[in-house]
Amino acid sequence: MKKIINKPENVVTEMLDGLAYVHSDLVHRVDGFDIIVRNEQAAGQVGLISGGGSGHEPAHAGFVGDGMLSAAIAGAVFTSPTPDQILEAIKEADQGAGVFMVVKNYSGDIMNFEMAQELAEMEGIEVASVVVDDDIAVENSLYTQGRRGVAGTIFVHKILGHAAREGKSLAEIKDLADKIVPNIHTIGLALSGATVPEVGKPGFVLAEDEIEYGIGIHGEPGYRKESMQPSRQLAEELTGKLLEAFEAKSGERYALLINGMGATPLMEQYVFANDVASILGDAGLDVAYKKLGNYMTSIDMAGLSLTLMKIEDEAWLEALESPVKTIAW
Amino acid sequence: MKKIINKPENVVTEMLDGLAYVHSDLVHRVDGFDIIVRNEQAAGQVGLISGGGSGHEPAHAGFVGDGMLSAAIAGAVFTSPTPDQILEAIKEADQGAGVFMVVKNYSGDIMNFEMAQELAEMEGIEVASVVVDDDIAVENSLYTQGRRGVAGTIFVHKILGHAAREGKSLAEIKDLADKIVPNIHTIGLALSGATVPEVGKPGFVLAEDEIEYGIGIHGEPGYRKESMQPSRQLAEELTGKLLEAFEAKSGERYALLINGMGATPLMEQYVFANDVASILGDAGLDVAYKKLGNYMTSIDMAGLSLTLMKIEDEAWLEALESPVKTIAW
Repeated sequence: MKKIINKPENVVTEMLDGLAYVHSDLVHRVDGFDIIVRNEQAAGQVGLISGGGSGHEPAHAGFVGDGMLSAAIAGAVFTSPTPDQILEAIKEADQGAGVFMVVKNYSGDIMNFEMAQELAEMEGIEVASVVVDDDIAVENSLYTQGRRGVAGTIFVHKILGHAAREGKSLAEIKDLADKIVPNIHTIGLALSGATVPEVGKPGFVLAEDEIEYGIGIHGEPGYRKESMQPSRQLAEELTGKLLEAFEAKSGERYALLINGMGATPLMEQYVFANDVASILGDAGLDVAYKKLGNYMTSIDMAGLSLTLMKIEDEAWLEALESPVKTIAW
Repeated sequence: MKKIINKPENVVTEMLDGLAYVHSDLVHRVDGFDIIVRNEQAAGQVGLISGGGSGHEPAHAGFVGDGMLSAAIAGAVFTSPTPDQILEAIKEADQGAGVFMVVKNYSGDIMNFEMAQELAEMEGIEVASVVVDDDIAVENSLYTQGRRGVAGTIFVHKILGHAAREGKSLAEIKDLADKIVPNIHTIGLALSGATVPEVGKPGFVLAEDEIEYGIGIHGEPGYRKESMQPSRQLAEELTGKLLEAFEAKSGERYALLINGMGATPLMEQYVFANDVASILGDAGLDVAYKKLGNYMTSIDMAGLSLTLMKIEDEAWLEALESPVKTIAW
């Protein structure tokens, strides 16, 4: 393992300190906790929090800021944050109007966020949540009952963050979350595995000319290994699966996210985007919002994921487009 | 070589089409040219252009937009753009107040930008330029007389872009450029080499436990190979060289840029930032502006560079901080 780190066991705390140092104009770290919060919380608004294991940078701290998250919790690498950490984030985010939690569908995350919710409610803070399960690659997986929550989660942060800023109530945000999540589907592929610093070697190894379709963001297996293909074929496979999942029809409106897994250069992401554009164009879809870059990574994995969100309400599009002040959106 | 591309010879054109597709709200590609320009040029302002070989994404197209570049030219991978391409960018950028070119110090770039300038002047467009040579690692290099131009160039784009937006004249921008460039120093390190798609294998290979200090952004050699070190030692080496080059004194004001080379996860960049913060703090420097991420990459190289800019004028800091509408700043 060749990584720019010091002791592997200190990676998360040093990373959070580095992040808080570089972005001190926007966010700070809560003393004694692995939590990044906004410098200025918005009084009277619903607090919005998210988090999960570290290793997905810029998620989740990169989405903390005006118009998105109030706070983000960073667990150990690829490990759910503990309930006491989540509880602290809830307290930081609470401005008297309750706190909404965006949770990705992993058994550990669900258990710990639920426990934190119970603790917060005992302290008189109203809490609600949604579970994001956008990855259509496989049913059930390592760490997951049902489908995994992956890159599409950042659309949930953005749309709910906009709603919170607009002054929506906790119940209204819960209602909106339940409407948008089923309209977000993602599928990914890997060219290489990710190396967790404390493990020191990749979680899985692909041959020199091999890729894997349908991988997760923690090294979970996908649905098929295959020899390397040109970008156009990779795009056909991933786009095809998504269009099938949506039963997409010509003229429908979608938002698009191409997400790099950490070690994939923008050059390759843009070449892939060009192929996706051509396929979606042929399918007659109206791609009203587009985003590309490294947003929900898997440490140093090479690969990418493709997310589509069906825009059923014009307000969702406005929410995606509204300006924010964050590190990474 | 395992890359998400189609034919290697089509990488640049497909990448530019993909970029123009994803960011159609901000920029477009000039038909028949490898040039990305703003959707809305600012009438009466000095045009600002930059460019170079492809493979440094998001540079340079990622910095096109209100408050930064008017246009960016993309050569073949790691290859200077040709004079006809640069000339076209000058024409696109010209709004009647002349065009300023930010050129990195590579022999091919200098020759081709100069030739384009002559052609533009024959067509009656006033043109001026600055050569950026911020890399302190080595004197002379592959492709370079003197010092190489690397990541610090994005500070030049930002400060001059702000000046152009403020309505400064071509002569004033030239004067400002000549003042800021000597105050920007950069030094980098590599954990791995970059693979040019048309070559198919890395430009250089480092052993499993080896790094190289002082590398360029096209696989140019550095000044020392060594066994892998903890982040703290890497930070001491790079920061030490920069502080020495500046003859930095306690209380002086600097801007900081930590730049990922393409395949280095944010986790590592932030851990490194934490070490740099501690060293600069010990040196008593006032780090008034900080930036971190992948800005001037070397395709899929693992590694990073560290840039410091001495802030000799408060206006430079305001220029760095002013909001812009670009893909990547």
